[in-house]
Amino acid sequence: MSIATSPFVREGTPLERAVKAARVYRRAHGPSILREFCTFLSIPNTSAEAEGLVRNAHFLQEAFAKRRARMELLRVASAPPIVFGELRTPGATRTLGIYMHYDGQPAGADRWAHPPWEPTLYHRPLEEGGQPRPLPEEGEPIDPEWRLYARSASDGKAPFAALLAALDALYAADIAPTANLKFLFDGEEESGSPNLPRYLKHYGESYHDVDAWLFLDGPVHPSRRPQLVFGARGTASLEVTVYGAVRPLHSGHYGNWAPVPGTLLAHLLASMVDEEGHVLIDGFYDGVEPVGEAERALLDAMPDYDDDLRQELGLLGTGLQGVPLVESLMLPSLTVRGLESGSVGETVRNVVPSHASASIDIRLAPGNDPETIMERVEEHIRRQGYHIVRVTPNHDTRLRHPKIARVVREKGYPAARTPVDLPIVGTLAKAVEAATGEPPLLVPTFGGSLPLYLFTDVLEKPAVIVPIVNHDNNEHAPNENLRLANLWYGVDLFAALLTM
Amino acid sequence: MSIATSPFVREGTPLERAVKAARVYRRAHGPSILREFCTFLSIPNTSAEAEGLVRNAHFLQEAFAKRRARMELLRVASAPPIVFGELRTPGATRTLGIYMHYDGQPAGADRWAHPPWEPTLYHRPLEEGGQPRPLPEEGEPIDPEWRLYARSASDGKAPFAALLAALDALYAADIAPTANLKFLFDGEEESGSPNLPRYLKHYGESYHDVDAWLFLDGPVHPSRRPQLVFGARGTASLEVTVYGAVRPLHSGHYGNWAPVPGTLLAHLLASMVDEEGHVLIDGFYDGVEPVGEAERALLDAMPDYDDDLRQELGLLGTGLQGVPLVESLMLPSLTVRGLESGSVGETVRNVVPSHASASIDIRLAPGNDPETIMERVEEHIRRQGYHIVRVTPNHDTRLRHPKIARVVREKGYPAARTPVDLPIVGTLAKAVEAATGEPPLLVPTFGGSLPLYLFTDVLEKPAVIVPIVNHDNNEHAPNENLRLANLWYGVDLFAALLTM
Repeated sequence: MSIATSPFVREGTPLERAVKAARVYRRAHGPSILREFCTFLSIPNTSAEAEGLVRNAHFLQEAFAKRRARMELLRVASAPPIVFGELRTPGATRTLGIYMHYDGQPAGADRWAHPPWEPTLYHRPLEEGGQPRPLPEEGEPIDPEWRLYARSASDGKAPFAALLAALDALYAADIAPTANLKFLFDGEEESGSPNLPRYLKHYGESYHDVDAWLFLDGPVHPSRRPQLVFGARGTASLEVTVYGAVRPLHSGHYGNWAPVPGTLLAHLLASMVDEEGHVLIDGFYDGVEPVGEAERALLDAMPDYDDDLRQELGLLGTGLQGVPLVESLMLPSLTVRGLESGSVGETVRNVVPSHASASIDIRLAPGNDPETIMERVEEHIRRQGYHIVRVTPNHDTRLRHPKIARVVREKGYPAARTPVDLPIVGTLAKAVEAATGEPPLLVPTFGGSLPLYLFTDVLEKPAVIVPIVNHDNNEHAPNENLRLANLWYGVDLFAALLTM
Repeated sequence: MSIATSPFVREGTPLERAVKAARVYRRAHGPSILREFCTFLSIPNTSAEAEGLVRNAHFLQEAFAKRRARMELLRVASAPPIVFGELRTPGATRTLGIYMHYDGQPAGADRWAHPPWEPTLYHRPLEEGGQPRPLPEEGEPIDPEWRLYARSASDGKAPFAALLAALDALYAADIAPTANLKFLFDGEEESGSPNLPRYLKHYGESYHDVDAWLFLDGPVHPSRRPQLVFGARGTASLEVTVYGAVRPLHSGHYGNWAPVPGTLLAHLLASMVDEEGHVLIDGFYDGVEPVGEAERALLDAMPDYDDDLRQELGLLGTGLQGVPLVESLMLPSLTVRGLESGSVGETVRNVVPSHASASIDIRLAPGNDPETIMERVEEHIRRQGYHIVRVTPNHDTRLRHPKIARVVREKGYPAARTPVDLPIVGTLAKAVEAATGEPPLLVPTFGGSLPLYLFTDVLEKPAVIVPIVNHDNNEHAPNENLRLANLWYGVDLFAALLTM
């Protein structure tokens, strides 16, 4: 008996039928869904892999073409392709724009249990003693607590796998989507989507009929409850390097006399941000828009999960002491995401290193401009007595300035928010409830960044983030993984979104 | 005509004849001296290379046995061998102990122009555009400004090569040494010679007749003038790791709320030492012995070379502002020799890292005890609110203490000084003058560390450091090198020391 003729799937509203069809389909075809997903995950996808990014784009072009979409690779010079797609259904009541990204963060391969582009299934999380196991054979039952380890298993390839399976499930059950779809698959999200503005300038017309954008990205709530998210913080980042002598010096023969870059950097960073994370840079918090009433109501309705999270993460306290996680994300933040000078551990050498570097990640709230905030950081560095350069200083420069900092800025983008009282929000919430049996948490903003502003502020359309992956997925870090229960949630949810 | 019968070498005092013999010999046999040295340099010699260290010891055993010494490998459990040797000459007027070390610092191979154990000759320093060139053929002239690049080319294998050639030169000229020699070749100097006390306990009797110890190690003065050094700073070191969450977190989703280890570490380090290198830890400078009158006279006689050094090193200022290099080495120092958290540069990831580490190098002045000073550093860390652990904290520990620092101490040893007014000092100075034509600088202490205290304070014999290598040798760092002129200086000087 085919899914289409199963009585179970024939009853109820299209939305109910779609969710049922998704469940029946993924239970029957779990192993082949995972196999196709692993093929996708095995294609390297960092910004350093130009050729790999193109292979990812081709994979998506073919996979969605097989699901009846008209696919096309858009190109601008010196950028990975945007994968465009269109899937029209006669009688559709709306057009949804679907944003996903196929690129991933650098992997730091040496710290992975398995190579990051060799997807490996574990019977539970590594931290809980998970053991690798083969992919399931056709017909073999799948434990939803299994974890699939690979770069981008969660961020952001999981939503592609879920959407492909959701389409297959609807087709298998002869259920027609109620929305036309327009796809925009980004290949530079993890690099701050620097070419997306150019792409939208050239190709924006292709998306003129989109009524609302869904960003299929990011994790569900740490409590594993579903959530819909109406904004994202903006981003800015810079790398700061301070200098000692032109070459590393023997720490005995020069220790006391030689300037120590690690010490200088420690003072510089300590002057920027206190131990709790309050930023001490003049003007850093200027211009941040106050939290609106509707957003305040959502924040107040969020469950207090911080104690559980602290327990899970092994933290007695937090950065901004006493500020709940969801509140802390309404503000801009400054994070030391990397430190490097000389070496530590087994390879430590008795040197005064010649330089020390810090990589600084800044997240922006609405009202912050990325260039302005980086300018304020640089003003602060100058006020600590540093001469700022853009490239490694030459000998002359070194002999003209007692303290030199090389600052390399990475292009950022501003925060964005979609109003939480639009009609589409209620429709989406009902779809989530149909897929999970419980209403989603409604969250004013993600702490993470997405180029949402291009859609809300440039294209001027609502944009809602619809996350599916587990929060404990090690995204951006070694041993990124996806909990299969979250993949299944994605299949069910996306089937619902297409028929809501 | 053999060297022995050359009229040039037949005239003068034994000391003068020895220096002449050395010059004639190294000019005639430079290529073979370099070839044997390169064989030695190609044997890996870090503490991680237990088997390589034994091969180094065997190389030395054979090389000195060929030069008529009675050689033996001394062993204590779980330590690289000490190479013992004895070279007796009938009618010798004294017995000199010769200390050298055959181990090297870790290499950080990826930052070398050539692999660290593939010795490579350059026609000038890398920084000046040096190009690699083949080892010279027999009879080919050798430019003394050539540089030989390899781990330990300077620190500490160069003195072995110089001493072997000096012995060959004396033998070729039929000049008998005026001293008996006792060799102690250390395989753990770069690790703080942790087993040398045990070795001296077991085998100290073999060295009972040594009148004075010569430590053949370290660089000449930055002005390239010869120097004799009468002390060394002691050493202590520790690695400090501070913690955030049990796993790296997405810097967007958790930025503001998650504690940032890099920020915590910056504050901790900034509280320990100011930007100029003044240590702010309570009691750090307590107990340092004041500079004696004889030492003060030597310090006052040192040339003011700091401006030239700043020029060479690209520094407008220094650490301890306004304190001359030689003076600054009379005090203990605290150097941040390594920093590590997350990553920077090409592989940077948007995470709040789970930990941040600093490696701290401490140099001690006479009067400092290594354990006491590390205790004071730990007291300071506790006063900043940290709970100190010795291993990575488990989940329970993390949930009991808001701030946790793992401190791993490395065993250190105290500073040592030999009185500068002993008769041997005048004898040594004359030998240097015979080898170079100019009197050596007499330096109260090296900034670097050597286990000199075991000889001065435990064996109670004078110990003088006799350096030969160039100061700009990148010792302890990538691209370590030896300027050949300094190797030739070593050959001449050691021939003089053996006949003084």
